[in-house]
Amino acid sequence: MDRFMEAALAEAEAGGAEGGIPIGAVLVRDGAIIGRGHNRRVQDDDPVLHAEIDCLRNAGRVGRYRETVLYSTLMPCYLCAGAVVQFGIPRVVVGESRNFPGARAFLVDHGVEVVDLDLPACYEMMARFIEDHPALWNEDIGEL
Amino acid sequence: MDRFMEAALAEAEAGGAEGGIPIGAVLVRDGAIIGRGHNRRVQDDDPVLHAEIDCLRNAGRVGRYRETVLYSTLMPCYLCAGAVVQFGIPRVVVGESRNFPGARAFLVDHGVEVVDLDLPACYEMMARFIEDHPALWNEDIGEL
Repeated sequence: MDRFMEAALAEAEAGGAEGGIPIGAVLVRDGAIIGRGHNRRVQDDDPVLHAEIDCLRNAGRVGRYRETVLYSTLMPCYLCAGAVVQFGIPRVVVGESRNFPGARAFLVDHGVEVVDLDLPACYEMMARFIEDHPALWNEDIGEL
Repeated sequence: MDRFMEAALAEAEAGGAEGGIPIGAVLVRDGAIIGRGHNRRVQDDDPVLHAEIDCLRNAGRVGRYRETVLYSTLMPCYLCAGAVVQFGIPRVVVGESRNFPGARAFLVDHGVEVVDLDLPACYEMMARFIEDHPALWNEDIGEL
């Protein structure tokens, strides 16, 4: 597996081990990870800390995002895709979109390159979580 | 002025007094404020804490957003508009959009009602800030 997606998956697994929603993300620039994070809704009782938002937060004020790539284990929702578009991140690599189609069309329509690796390790992990915790998943994507 | 926009403006002014970007927001349900916040990029060195995100964070896990209204002193950008669409907030009231057209069309296209109060107190405050701190403003909207 791509080493950056491996790091995003490790974040997702760490979140799951904490009792949280297992979605992870890393931000990459010049071949190096400059931020990483995972969904913290449960851990911090925080509805905005989706994996990608936690990752961007942990990366800090990096200045221009034009040379960055965002990796996420799952296709970003509108919140996270909105951050990608607003900050000008040109490329998003996702582990899967089988469990959640997300805001792919919105990203593409705004000129973002989206690569879907469709990895069993990602979609099997997420499918298990959604089956075991449907209410928590629906809360996370605003489907209550 | 609408009392909820007054509260959002007070948040913006508090942020400005802290040396931050003067944008404020409140989340309202059943005629009561259930969350409030302001941009904290400077104060917390946090690129994702736009006013609306800080407000949604401070509101906590409120469950359904179908009965909420988000007030902001400025038209939301794609990050914050993405949160509105994903969480299912049906109505956004803004103080102004003269200084930043934001993601109004995206909100409307996704069924969100957008009310622009076009208040001098909001657009004069923001115009002064942008004139005094153009680099910080451009950083906040991803225009570096």
